[in-house]
Formats: sequence, structure tokens, C-alpha cells
Amino acid sequence: MNCGRRERKKAETRDRLTAAALRLAIELGPDEVTVEQIAEAADVSPRTFFNYFPSKWDAIVDFDLSEKHEFAAAVAARPADEPPLEALRQAFLSRPDAQGAEFEEMRSRMELVEQHDVLNRRFLQYFAMFEQSLVDAIAERLGVDPQKDPYPGLLVASVTAAIRATFHRYAEQHTERSFVEVFDEAFEVLASGFTPPDPQR
Amino acid sequence: MNCGRRERKKAETRDRLTAAALRLAIELGPDEVTVEQIAEAADVSPRTFFNYFPSKWDAIVDFDLSEKHEFAAAVAARPADEPPLEALRQAFLSRPDAQGAEFEEMRSRMELVEQHDVLNRRFLQYFAMFEQSLVDAIAERLGVDPQKDPYPGLLVASVTAAIRATFHRYAEQHTERSFVEVFDEAFEVLASGFTPPDPQR
Repeated sequence: MNCGRRERKKAETRDRLTAAALRLAIELGPDEVTVEQIAEAADVSPRTFFNYFPSKWDAIVDFDLSEKHEFAAAVAARPADEPPLEALRQAFLSRPDAQGAEFEEMRSRMELVEQHDVLNRRFLQYFAMFEQSLVDAIAERLGVDPQKDPYPGLLVASVTAAIRATFHRYAEQHTERSFVEVFDEAFEVLASGFTPPDPQR
Repeated sequence: MNCGRRERKKAETRDRLTAAALRLAIELGPDEVTVEQIAEAADVSPRTFFNYFPSKWDAIVDFDLSEKHEFAAAVAARPADEPPLEALRQAFLSRPDAQGAEFEEMRSRMELVEQHDVLNRRFLQYFAMFEQSLVDAIAERLGVDPQKDPYPGLLVASVTAAIRATFHRYAEQHTERSFVEVFDEAFEVLASGFTPPDPQR
């Protein structure tokens, strides 16, 4: 992660743009809101907006690919003898947003995205790119060809599905438990081969 | 499964309608094709069409909920001491379409569905209903509340993601291996807690 002053300022501008895009898309509707309105609300020019996002849709969806690439890089950097699932778990749980700080914003965003076809399609495309970068990182760790060996794709599909299911559950439950705790439990279930909660039952 | 003459005839008509809907949607485009054209190609009246499907979209997507309910019922009917993942595996592998007989049709359908927002949204809604019926079946087996216990939702999300990833891989690979064999291997990976293909690497 880059933490120079210039990078920090860029990250702040990006955050202002995505927050404004989300708020205005909810207020006015994703089809109606314009780049001009988003830029104005974030106190930048439309031209600056386009330095950050190719379209309003991308600003609303706010799928930060460079942050996702950092995640894939973190997976790749985990100790070589760590099993792939454990590497994903450690990389995931050490991400800033695993702390749940921006959880409310993430929840509103996902609600909007799921209701709107253009946003949803864009989100799924981004998500597929993210998954592919994880598949590549896992394949690299194992020294297998991800085109031939089903394992990396299977692992990543199952883990991201579990993360999404856990996110939705967390969003619905208003639990007192922390994000990290809830997600760690999900990884535990995966690592156990889906041993049920109480084998006696 | 009902196998009386009347049921068989209904299933045949349904198959004719979905095959015609898919073929014409590919030929003419999903937006352009009409219920009248689909009905005519399947040699039934538009009125009969509407006995089977509420809209052309549903005929094109061909997500057979009653068959999916049979699947959930098969999961519920597995021996009580079988672990949930094993119950899903056994129920899945004994489905008629796990044999891959209609694989080519399924593949063309999924390609079309993923390219088209209305179809894709419809498919995802059906799929969410299907997943919910599986979550309920698993929760029932375990005697847990699926609203409170994360396990059933987590299991089903991971398994269906693994099945979809395996389906896509199978669709791309032109392998000689059977559907059942490939899917069984996927379930094996899940049951192992994602032990990598070769732990030595």
C-alpha cells in the first residue's frame, strides 16, 4: 500500500467521489444521476472524475481493482508452506475493510447494485476479474496450470461464495459480533470440510 | 418423480417448449422472439404455452423449479446420520441431468443467459429460490434455525458455487471424463477442507 502524501490525497478524492456517487444514485436513481452532479458533490471537475472512473457506473459500483490486486498479492506473499485456504483466510482477514469500518456504505452499495441490471452486470464483471486474479495467485503458489487443474478455480469460487453469503448474513443480522470474528468462523467451516455445527444432532 | 402417461406427456410438451424457446432466442434474439413463435415451433397454442410458463423469459431460462424441489426433497430424504455435504453430493449425483445427457443444451442456454440482463436476472432469482430450498432442507436435517445458524447458508453457497465453477470448466474443456466423475471430484475437494491436489508442492 502506498502511503505518500500524493497517494493519500488521491485515495481521499476517490473516496469522496464514490461516496457522492452512491448517495446521489440512491437519491436520484442510477439512471438519472450524472457525472457532473457527482463531480460537483465531490468538489472536483468532471475532467478529474474521469481520471478516476471511466463512467458513473464504475463510481457507483466502486470496485477498487487496485485494492483487489493488493489482496491477490497478499495471498501470493503468504508463506509457501501455508495451505491455500489458510493463505486466503489470512490475506482476507488482514484487509482494512475486513474490520467492517465502511460496512454501512458497503451494504447500501450492494443493495443498490443488486437491484439494478447495469450496475449488477458491471459488478459481476469486476468480481470475475478479481476471482481470476485469486485463481492465478493460488495456481502460482501450487505450481499448477489453472486452465488444467480444477483446484484453484474450485477453491476460489467456494471461498468467495462463502464470503458473500457471510456478508449478506452479517448485513441482515445486526449482530454485536465483529466482522473478523464472523468471517473467521466461515473460513473455519470451509477448512473443516463442512463439518456441521454440532455432529451429535 | 411422476411417471404416469399424463405426466410424461406434460414433460414432453415442456421439453419441446424450452427447446424451441432456446433455439428461437438464439436465432432471433431474446428480445425479438415472441410467445406465438415459440408455441408454433413446439406445435401448441399460445394458450397452452401459458399453462407452462408465465412469460417467454421463463421458457428460455428453463429453470425447472419442480425438479429443483425434487432435488431438495432428495436431500431431505437422505439417511439422517449422513453429513450434510455427503447428502448434497449423493442427491446431486443421482439427478438425471448429472449424467450430462442434456449438457449441450444446458451449455448453450447458460451462454445466452449470461449475455442477457433480463434472462440473467431471472436466472439469478430462480437460483436464489433453489438455494433457499436447499438451505431449508439442510437446516431441517440438522434441526437448526437457518435464520440464526450460518452453517446451512454457508454450505449451500459454497457447494452451488463449486458446482457452477465445475460446470463452466466442464463446458470449456471438452474432456472425455464423465459429468459424474468431474463433479464427484469437486465434492471430494470440498469434503477435504480444500486439501490441495498435491500437498508436496
